[in-house]
Amino acid sequence: MSISIAQIAAALNARAEGNPEIRVIGASEPAQAGPDQIALAMDPKYAEGLARGKARAAVLWEGADWRAMGLEAAILVARPRLAMAGLSRAFDPGPEIAPGRHPTAIIDPSASIGEGAAIGPFVVIGRGVTIGPRARIASHVTIAEEASLGADALILQGARIGHHVQIGERFICHQNAVIGADGFSFVTEETSGVEEIRQTLGAREDVRAQGWIRIHSLGNVVIGDDVEVGAGSTLDRGTVRATTIGAGTKIDNLVHVGHNVQVGRDCLLCGQVGIAGSARIGDRVVLGGQCGVSDNIFVGDDVIAGGGTKIYTNAPAGRVLLGSPAVRMETQIEAQKNIRRLPRLFAQVAELRSVVEQLLDKGAAGNPVNIRKDEE
Amino acid sequence: MSISIAQIAAALNARAEGNPEIRVIGASEPAQAGPDQIALAMDPKYAEGLARGKARAAVLWEGADWRAMGLEAAILVARPRLAMAGLSRAFDPGPEIAPGRHPTAIIDPSASIGEGAAIGPFVVIGRGVTIGPRARIASHVTIAEEASLGADALILQGARIGHHVQIGERFICHQNAVIGADGFSFVTEETSGVEEIRQTLGAREDVRAQGWIRIHSLGNVVIGDDVEVGAGSTLDRGTVRATTIGAGTKIDNLVHVGHNVQVGRDCLLCGQVGIAGSARIGDRVVLGGQCGVSDNIFVGDDVIAGGGTKIYTNAPAGRVLLGSPAVRMETQIEAQKNIRRLPRLFAQVAELRSVVEQLLDKGAAGNPVNIRKDEE
Amino acid sequence: MSISIAQIAAALNARAEGNPEIRVIGASEPAQAGPDQIALAMDPKYAEGLARGKARAAVLWEGADWRAMGLEAAILVARPRLAMAGLSRAFDPGPEIAPGRHPTAIIDPSASIGEGAAIGPFVVIGRGVTIGPRARIASHVTIAEEASLGADALILQGARIGHHVQIGERFICHQNAVIGADGFSFVTEETSGVEEIRQTLGAREDVRAQGWIRIHSLGNVVIGDDVEVGAGSTLDRGTVRATTIGAGTKIDNLVHVGHNVQVGRDCLLCGQVGIAGSARIGDRVVLGGQCGVSDNIFVGDDVIAGGGTKIYTNAPAGRVLLGSPAVRMETQIEAQKNIRRLPRLFAQVAELRSVVEQLLDKGAAGNPVNIRKDEE
Repeated sequence: MSISIAQIAAALNARAEGNPEIRVIGASEPAQAGPDQIALAMDPKYAEGLARGKARAAVLWEGADWRAMGLEAAILVARPRLAMAGLSRAFDPGPEIAPGRHPTAIIDPSASIGEGAAIGPFVVIGRGVTIGPRARIASHVTIAEEASLGADALILQGARIGHHVQIGERFICHQNAVIGADGFSFVTEETSGVEEIRQTLGAREDVRAQGWIRIHSLGNVVIGDDVEVGAGSTLDRGTVRATTIGAGTKIDNLVHVGHNVQVGRDCLLCGQVGIAGSARIGDRVVLGGQCGVSDNIFVGDDVIAGGGTKIYTNAPAGRVLLGSPAVRMETQIEAQKNIRRLPRLFAQVAELRSVVEQLLDKGAAGNPVNIRKDEE
Repeated sequence: MSISIAQIAAALNARAEGNPEIRVIGASEPAQAGPDQIALAMDPKYAEGLARGKARAAVLWEGADWRAMGLEAAILVARPRLAMAGLSRAFDPGPEIAPGRHPTAIIDPSASIGEGAAIGPFVVIGRGVTIGPRARIASHVTIAEEASLGADALILQGARIGHHVQIGERFICHQNAVIGADGFSFVTEETSGVEEIRQTLGAREDVRAQGWIRIHSLGNVVIGDDVEVGAGSTLDRGTVRATTIGAGTKIDNLVHVGHNVQVGRDCLLCGQVGIAGSARIGDRVVLGGQCGVSDNIFVGDDVIAGGGTKIYTNAPAGRVLLGSPAVRMETQIEAQKNIRRLPRLFAQVAELRSVVEQLLDKGAAGNPVNIRKDEE
Repeated sequence: MSISIAQIAAALNARAEGNPEIRVIGASEPAQAGPDQIALAMDPKYAEGLARGKARAAVLWEGADWRAMGLEAAILVARPRLAMAGLSRAFDPGPEIAPGRHPTAIIDPSASIGEGAAIGPFVVIGRGVTIGPRARIASHVTIAEEASLGADALILQGARIGHHVQIGERFICHQNAVIGADGFSFVTEETSGVEEIRQTLGAREDVRAQGWIRIHSLGNVVIGDDVEVGAGSTLDRGTVRATTIGAGTKIDNLVHVGHNVQVGRDCLLCGQVGIAGSARIGDRVVLGGQCGVSDNIFVGDDVIAGGGTKIYTNAPAGRVLLGSPAVRMETQIEAQKNIRRLPRLFAQVAELRSVVEQLLDKGAAGNPVNIRKDEE
């Protein structure tokens, strides 16, 4: 597949300069680019790499002097990451999944498969499943009974779509992800220690031996349009109602979404995020890698949490959070600074104590003011 | 499948009032309930939802006035979550795995498969495997050589049971979980930097380049009765002895249990918990989501750790833990409060220093008492 | 398979004493050892277990008096963990993967499979794949188009090797790991809230609704020789360049390595570590379980981070880190100690305030020195 500079510029809705007829077969970092690749150098810091590479054309920052860099053509962009989105889409051939149904795929006769769907080897599709047109389903995928997938789904190797899961259009599910696993929900005959300390914040009357009784998950998972789920992530079904993921939300690898969780629209959940059961996440929430959200709490619209933040209590809309427990980002940065300053504070207080003690000693005998001796 | 209110009440060991002959086909949250569903409204806060839904019958809290809510029948329960366990079991049809052995399953002739087992498509069962009666094994599962599974096992899609793993009765293993992966155990020719800083708590003499030599895992994993392992979780085999999981323990999604770890009975390990090699976890321990346990330490019976707690040192039985490093929950809450109060403390100390300095200035010239000037 | 004490000693490059002709079929912890097993008791603390077990021979620490322990033979080692590496390799029969190609494996005719490779059931190997000699590929593995694997690879059940991924010799990939998933990279039309707070460290001008546009991953993953990847781990491909893992690096279970990340040689990434996009990790870096590394930062050679450490900023070579945010291990330990001492500090300051106030009261009326009253 080769593509001209003019075509790329059109795809990016950007301006081409120089020879628009140069054709390339791929994109590259500037220093590694060959003559049949377009170099990606959207920031002046990459200019030096261009000199080392062999590209004839490049995507450059607005105002770049491409002729001085020895290029024959250039595409100039104002917002480089946005240009990357268009460029990468243009050059991505996508996974190779042969059209039609592979003869080893096991598809229940009651399943409805949309036109133009490609279904790979060793796929298992259960009773009553509905799959939209143009779906691409790679090898070893399972889609269990009564699940439905909208148009243009891309389901990669080994992904598991559970029974009755409902998914919108243009869904992308990466390798070995699990949508619709059972929720983790158990109960004890009597009040458990966990229930007790939630009331008392740590105090326990006595400890009783008792076993866990399983609460089955009767709900499903409902996912909006344009959602993406990363490799190895797990989304649990709800207990009675559905676990829901709003349209446009993107989920990274190894993320855990518990039962009954409601995630809003256009959220980003980065790698290894964990959201405990029945938490509600608003729209456009961004949770950095390894963030955690406690069960049954609410995270408001537009909250952004830095990597590793653990959210234990409700977070109001628009809040920027950091740390464990999560507090406002600036509060957290201030707290860390304060902790670093503690050694000096300890020294100052010790000195004050000594000075004040000397002041007291200088006072009259029988001075009723005194400082308790440190027992340490 | 329809079921009468009387049957549900009997299953829950609870009291039905009104018309016990009403039949339902499922359960629902109150506001979404249709006339053929039983509404679940075990708390007065759900009463309002009942008015919006169309349920004719509901499960209600003890003492609820169901007639005033326009219902025709009600089941009254004292402990709602316990009722949910019974209800959800009654309504869960379970995964659809056809009885018998799917023709595409590859089962070693030496394997012993119990009566009534259902084995799905593309399953691979190795040499000398023993599977108990009534096991249900979904598609794409592998069970490697010499592994054994007790009666009534449910193994879901893509789960991997490693060689020689021994599992008790009623085991539930969710999608893509891995039981019996190799342990992560490596050694260097000479003392490694990691070994050195464990001794010195951070100090290193010098840094040496050296490679890692693999320690193979010869042990297996031994799992008691009534254990459940969540989607994508990984349990490593022991180096020489077994990694063990006690009866009744429930493990959530994406949990990592390292080699040689011993987990006791009736524990709950929530989502994304990680337990490093050779740690020992007592009975009835509850670790909230994303907790971590260091290698080679001991966590006593009945310990409960809040989400995100990192346990670096032995924890005595019954302790309620929070934070990183883990301390008693009330100590952690107090510490967080103290950190929030630091800005005022800094201000108070600064003021004290200034006041005391002024006091000193008022003293006689030649006053030997003084405060060191802040070098900042 | 039985092996003599003399053979074991030779494999360990260690000294045998007593009867070197005793043959064993496996290794065991001392207390559980049978007469046909060699007991592993490389530390005096295991001596007591030997008395309870039935071993005739043992691997013991240097200088141990094996005759007094009732043994007939002993192998004496100076560095026990190193001995374990040799011992465990000698006794590990490895997974049972039948030689040749299983008839159910689907191998593209254009793929090049090295001599002596064993390929299990339901494996799918794509167009243009290259697999080195003696590779062992277990059931349900997928290797996508144009990927290449060096000699002696061991790929376990359900692992996914993505298209164009390049892997060196002696690669070990555990169950359900995913090498070469798409990177998690999205962009908004206008500057997003995340971009804004990275500049301002928390402040946001206003919150705008906007969707995420996908940046496709055009790069691949390039992995050196002697690398191991644990069960369920995910390594994302680069956006334009490759994600790289240096030779000799070992990765544990459920580890997430983001797009464009560069990991050096001989690193250890323990369970559930997460490395965000475009981070660079030096050589011989050890990250304990559940560590996190922010995107776009650099972690120098020989850094060691304790479990749960979150690295937000560049870390210089050789640094030993702990905590969140990561600081030097001794600084972290000191900070925790200081936080524990805060209650006393608060008490001391309160007392000082009261004492100084009394001192002031004793001064003349009209004293200009005073302490602000606590507003709390």
